[in-house]
Amino acid sequence: MRSLSGLHPFHSRYWQWANILLGLVALQCALVASINVKGTAHEDDRTIARTTLTASSGIPALDNYTGLYRPQIHFSPPQEFMNDPNGLHKDAKGTYHLYYQYNPTGLVAGNQHWGHATSKDLYHWENQPIAIYPPTSDSQVFSGSAVIDSNNTSGFFPNQTDGVVAIYTLNSASAEVQEIAYSHDGGYSFTRYDGNPVIDVNSTQFRDPKVIWHEKTQRWVMVVSHAQDFVIAFYTSPDLKAWTLVSNFSHQGLLGSQWECPNLVPMPVRDVASGELIEHQDMYVLAISVNPGAPLGGSATQYFPGTFNGTTFTAIDRTVRLTDFAKDNYAGQFFYGILDDEDPISIAWASNWQYAEEVPTAQEGWRSAMSVPRRNFLANTPSTGWVLVSRPHDLRPVLGQVLVEKEWRAEGGISNASILTESGAVHLNVAVSGLLGSIPATSSLEIVLSTSDSQESLSCGYSFSDNTFFLDRGNTRGFQDPTFTSNFSTSVFPREDGTWTMSAVVDRSIIEVFLNEGVASATSVFFATQPLTSISISTAGLPSGATTKVELRALESVWRATGNDTARV
Amino acid sequence: MRSLSGLHPFHSRYWQWANILLGLVALQCALVASINVKGTAHEDDRTIARTTLTASSGIPALDNYTGLYRPQIHFSPPQEFMNDPNGLHKDAKGTYHLYYQYNPTGLVAGNQHWGHATSKDLYHWENQPIAIYPPTSDSQVFSGSAVIDSNNTSGFFPNQTDGVVAIYTLNSASAEVQEIAYSHDGGYSFTRYDGNPVIDVNSTQFRDPKVIWHEKTQRWVMVVSHAQDFVIAFYTSPDLKAWTLVSNFSHQGLLGSQWECPNLVPMPVRDVASGELIEHQDMYVLAISVNPGAPLGGSATQYFPGTFNGTTFTAIDRTVRLTDFAKDNYAGQFFYGILDDEDPISIAWASNWQYAEEVPTAQEGWRSAMSVPRRNFLANTPSTGWVLVSRPHDLRPVLGQVLVEKEWRAEGGISNASILTESGAVHLNVAVSGLLGSIPATSSLEIVLSTSDSQESLSCGYSFSDNTFFLDRGNTRGFQDPTFTSNFSTSVFPREDGTWTMSAVVDRSIIEVFLNEGVASATSVFFATQPLTSISISTAGLPSGATTKVELRALESVWRATGNDTARV
Repeated sequence: MRSLSGLHPFHSRYWQWANILLGLVALQCALVASINVKGTAHEDDRTIARTTLTASSGIPALDNYTGLYRPQIHFSPPQEFMNDPNGLHKDAKGTYHLYYQYNPTGLVAGNQHWGHATSKDLYHWENQPIAIYPPTSDSQVFSGSAVIDSNNTSGFFPNQTDGVVAIYTLNSASAEVQEIAYSHDGGYSFTRYDGNPVIDVNSTQFRDPKVIWHEKTQRWVMVVSHAQDFVIAFYTSPDLKAWTLVSNFSHQGLLGSQWECPNLVPMPVRDVASGELIEHQDMYVLAISVNPGAPLGGSATQYFPGTFNGTTFTAIDRTVRLTDFAKDNYAGQFFYGILDDEDPISIAWASNWQYAEEVPTAQEGWRSAMSVPRRNFLANTPSTGWVLVSRPHDLRPVLGQVLVEKEWRAEGGISNASILTESGAVHLNVAVSGLLGSIPATSSLEIVLSTSDSQESLSCGYSFSDNTFFLDRGNTRGFQDPTFTSNFSTSVFPREDGTWTMSAVVDRSIIEVFLNEGVASATSVFFATQPLTSISISTAGLPSGATTKVELRALESVWRATGNDTARV
Repeated sequence: MRSLSGLHPFHSRYWQWANILLGLVALQCALVASINVKGTAHEDDRTIARTTLTASSGIPALDNYTGLYRPQIHFSPPQEFMNDPNGLHKDAKGTYHLYYQYNPTGLVAGNQHWGHATSKDLYHWENQPIAIYPPTSDSQVFSGSAVIDSNNTSGFFPNQTDGVVAIYTLNSASAEVQEIAYSHDGGYSFTRYDGNPVIDVNSTQFRDPKVIWHEKTQRWVMVVSHAQDFVIAFYTSPDLKAWTLVSNFSHQGLLGSQWECPNLVPMPVRDVASGELIEHQDMYVLAISVNPGAPLGGSATQYFPGTFNGTTFTAIDRTVRLTDFAKDNYAGQFFYGILDDEDPISIAWASNWQYAEEVPTAQEGWRSAMSVPRRNFLANTPSTGWVLVSRPHDLRPVLGQVLVEKEWRAEGGISNASILTESGAVHLNVAVSGLLGSIPATSSLEIVLSTSDSQESLSCGYSFSDNTFFLDRGNTRGFQDPTFTSNFSTSVFPREDGTWTMSAVVDRSIIEVFLNEGVASATSVFFATQPLTSISISTAGLPSGATTKVELRALESVWRATGNDTARV
C-alpha cells in the first residue's frame, strides 16, 4: 500500500492546484461510484429514488435543507449519502469539526470520502469542502478520528500549535490499513503522510481507529477494530506515526457479526439525581458498535464502563449495556479537545444499516442524519449499576418560542395542540412528580403527534405501574421495510424522589427521547408522508398527589439562520 | 415461614381427604385471586376478556382446545393463565412431565400454583390435576424444578426408585424461600417437606431453583437467582435438604431489571453441519432469563457456554448470547432425566411479560402457550463462535399430510397455496442450495401467510445478499399494544457449502422459525382476527445455479387425538 502514498495532493499549499484537479477527481469519483455503489437489497419502489443520483462534482454544491424529511436542527449532509461521524474535534478557537463518512456521488454507501462541517455551537453547522479524498480509484477513506497535535509530537507542525492529524482506515479490496493525514490549516485540508500506512497487519477487516491523548503516560492511544474477530486492539504511539500494540479487548458483550467504530474516552462520574461530580473516579468508557446482528436487528452500540492504565482497558464487570433502546444510533464518536472540566460530547449516526440505503429521504437528494450532540457522564445507579447518561448538549442556540406550557394534577392533558412551527421541529419536556407510594395499575402517560388528517402519527408513552416506556413509529407511512421496526420499549423506573421525566427532540424525520434526564435514550428516524402538525399529551390513572408539567417549545432551523440554503463551495 | 409448613396436605395417601378439602381450597383460592391477581396496566378494551374469569374450582375442568388462537401442537393450559415451565422431567417409564406456573382462577398472573401435564412424545399432552398448591392464602408457589431421586438421597423414598422431588420458591409478601416437596406417586401429587424452607436467606427477591445431579461429585447442584442483585447462586447438597452455597455467577451479559429462571445444563458439542458429536467436550450452558429490560423490551433469555467443576461455572468468554431473535421465548427449562446420550430437551414460555396478561386469547378463556419442545446442542461456529443450536424435538408424532412439495431453480415460487388444514397448523421446510460465488444484491426469499380476505398476513423473508432474515407480525390485527413489537430480524449467513435452510411451525397464534437447522431461532405469538388460510413463497434474483426446495405439511392436532376436549379431572 505504501507505493500508493503521496499520489493525491491534500496539502493546503496545493489547494489551488487541487481545485484544478477536482474536476478530474470528480469524474474519477463518478466512475468509481458506478462500480462501488452497493446495490440495495430490494429493487422495488422504495429505491426508485436512486434515479436522483446526480453527476456530482464531488463537492457539496447546493445546500438545500428544505424537504419534508430534512432535519432542521440535526446535521445532515448537503446531498447524497452519509454514515459514521469521523474526526470529531474542537479546535483552540472553539470551533467544532464534524467529519463524516460521505459518498458524494451516490445515495447509498460506497466511494467513501470524509465530508466536513464546522460549528460554533454544535447545532449551526457550516458545510465545508470534502476534507479527505480516497487517493486512488480503487480505495476508500473509511472511518477514523482526529486529534490536535499541539505539542508537535508528529513533527508535522514545527511552527504551529493547532495542527490537526486525521487517523483513518484506507480500505481497498486487498486490505484495510490505518493511515494518517495532517492539516496545517486547522482541519480544512489534509496531506497524506508519506510514510503511510502507519499500521498494516495484513487484514481486510481492520478499521476505524479512534485516538486520544493519554496524559499520564504522555502517549497517544488508539483503539481500532479487528471487525470479524471481535477484537479491539489498543495501540500506543509517541508521535502518531509509530504504533505499538499494547493490549486487546475481545469477546465481551454482544458480538453480532462485526465490531466497528470503537471509542475509548475518560468519563466523569456524576450523581445521577443532583448532577454533582463525584471526584477521583478515574473511569473510562469503551464503546463498540455492532453490525449486523444487534439484538433489534442490524446496528447498535454497546459500551463498557471500566478503567484504563495507559495500556489495558479493564471493564468494571462482564455486563453489556446499550446506548439506545431504539435502533438508529450507531458509530457514535466522542469529540477530541473537550476540556477536562467539561463532560464529553458525542455525536452518533442516526440510522441503521438494515435500511439506511433505502430510506425515502433519497427523494430529497440526501440520506442519513446525525444525532443531536450529547453530553455524557457515568452514573452508578442503585438498581442496575453503571449507566452512561446522555443528554442533548445545551439546546439554547436552537430553542424558540414556547408553544405550550401546562401543569395539571392526576389526570389531564393537552389535546391536539398545534406544533406548526417554521422549522417543523419541536422540543418537549415532561416532568411528573409526586409518584410516591402505591401507583395504580392504570397509571399512564400517552403522547401522540399527528398529521393534520390524523391518518399518521408518532407516539410514545409510559406506564407508571409496570415502568415500561414505548416509542411507536409504526403509524407513519412514508417508508415500508420489514426491518424498519415499528416499536421500541424499555424499562425505566421513577426516581427515588417520586419524579419521572422525559424530553424529546422531534425534528421532521428524527425523534430523540431522553428519560429521567438521559438515563435511557432512544434515537429513531420516522417517515410520515405529511408533516406532524399537532400533539396530544394525556395522563390517566395517576395518583391525586401526582403533578404533570409539560413544556413544548419550537426549535429554530439552523439552516436558514446560517444562510446555508445557498452554495458554499 | 417454618411455622406454616405442614398446614396443607399434599401427600398422596391423604388424597381422599384432600379431595374433600379441595372445595374449601377453591373458595380460598378464589378469595386469594381477588387479592393477588395483578391488575393489568391498561384497563381498556383489551382486558375486557377478564370478564370470562370463572368461579374456578381450582382444578382444570373442561379442556376446551378449540378457538381461533388455541395452538394445536403447542401446550397451553386447559384454561386461565400460565407462565413459566416448571419441574420438567422425564420419568423411568418414559413419561415427560410438564409443570407450569398456573393461576387457576384468573387470566392474569397471581395465585400461582404448579399446573401439570404429562406426555409420551412431548406433543400429545394429558392435563393432570394441579400438582402443587400454595400452602396458605398469602403465599404462592413460584417457579422451580424437579428431579428423580432414584438413589433415595433425600430419605423420602425408602421403598422406591421413582420418587420425585420438586424444588420451588415459596413466595409471600415478606420473603422468597426455597422449599421442597416429594411425590411417591411419580409426580402427580406432592407432600411438602416438613423441614421447609431448605434455603432462606432473608430476601424477597430470591427465586427459581433449578437442580441437576452432578455425577462427578455425586451431589445435587442448584442454581437460583438473586433477581435484583443479578447474582446466580450455586448451591450443592447431598440430600436435597441441606444446601451449601458454593459459588456465585454475577453481572455478566445483559442485566435488564431482574434475573430469573436460571438453568445449568451439561451440553453436548456437535459439528453444526454434520451434526456429529465432538467427543470429550465437557461443556455446560448457563441460561438466565431477563425481565423486564431486555433489549427488545420486556423478557428475553440469555445464555453462557462454559465449564462447571461441581462448584463453579466459568463462562467460555465474556460475551452474551440470546436464545431467540423475537421476543416470546422466556424462562426456558431443560428436562431432568434425559439420558446422557440424548441431546437436552427444553421448553420455554412463549410470551413476554410486557403483554402476556393482555393478549386476546382471554376471549377463549386461556392465556399463554409453551414453545415446542426443542433438542439442543452447542456448536462452535467459524464466525461468531459458540452457539446454542435449538431444533424442534422429533415432529413425527404430529406431522400430517404433505400439502405442497416443490423445487425450482433461481426465481420461482408458490402462489396462494391453501393451508386449510384441520388443525390450522402447518410445518414448513425451505432449503436453498447452490449459494456459491457472488450473490446478486436483489436475491431474496419471501414468505407470506394470509387470511382468506388477504387483509391480514404474517410474513418472513431473507435477503441472500445482506444476510438479513425478518419476521413480521405487524399485519395481524387481533391485538394492538405499543409493546407488541411488529417485526424482528437477525443476521444469518449461508453455510460454507452454499446452502441455507429455514423451517417453521405455524400454529394458529404461534410461529417458531429455525434458521440453518436451528443456529438461529425465533418464537413469536401473533393474533390475526381470522385464520391464515394460504401461503405464498417466492424467490427473486437468485443465481441460476441456486435451487429452492419447499415442503409444506399439515400438523395434526394433539388435542383431538387425545380426546382432551372432554373433562379430565
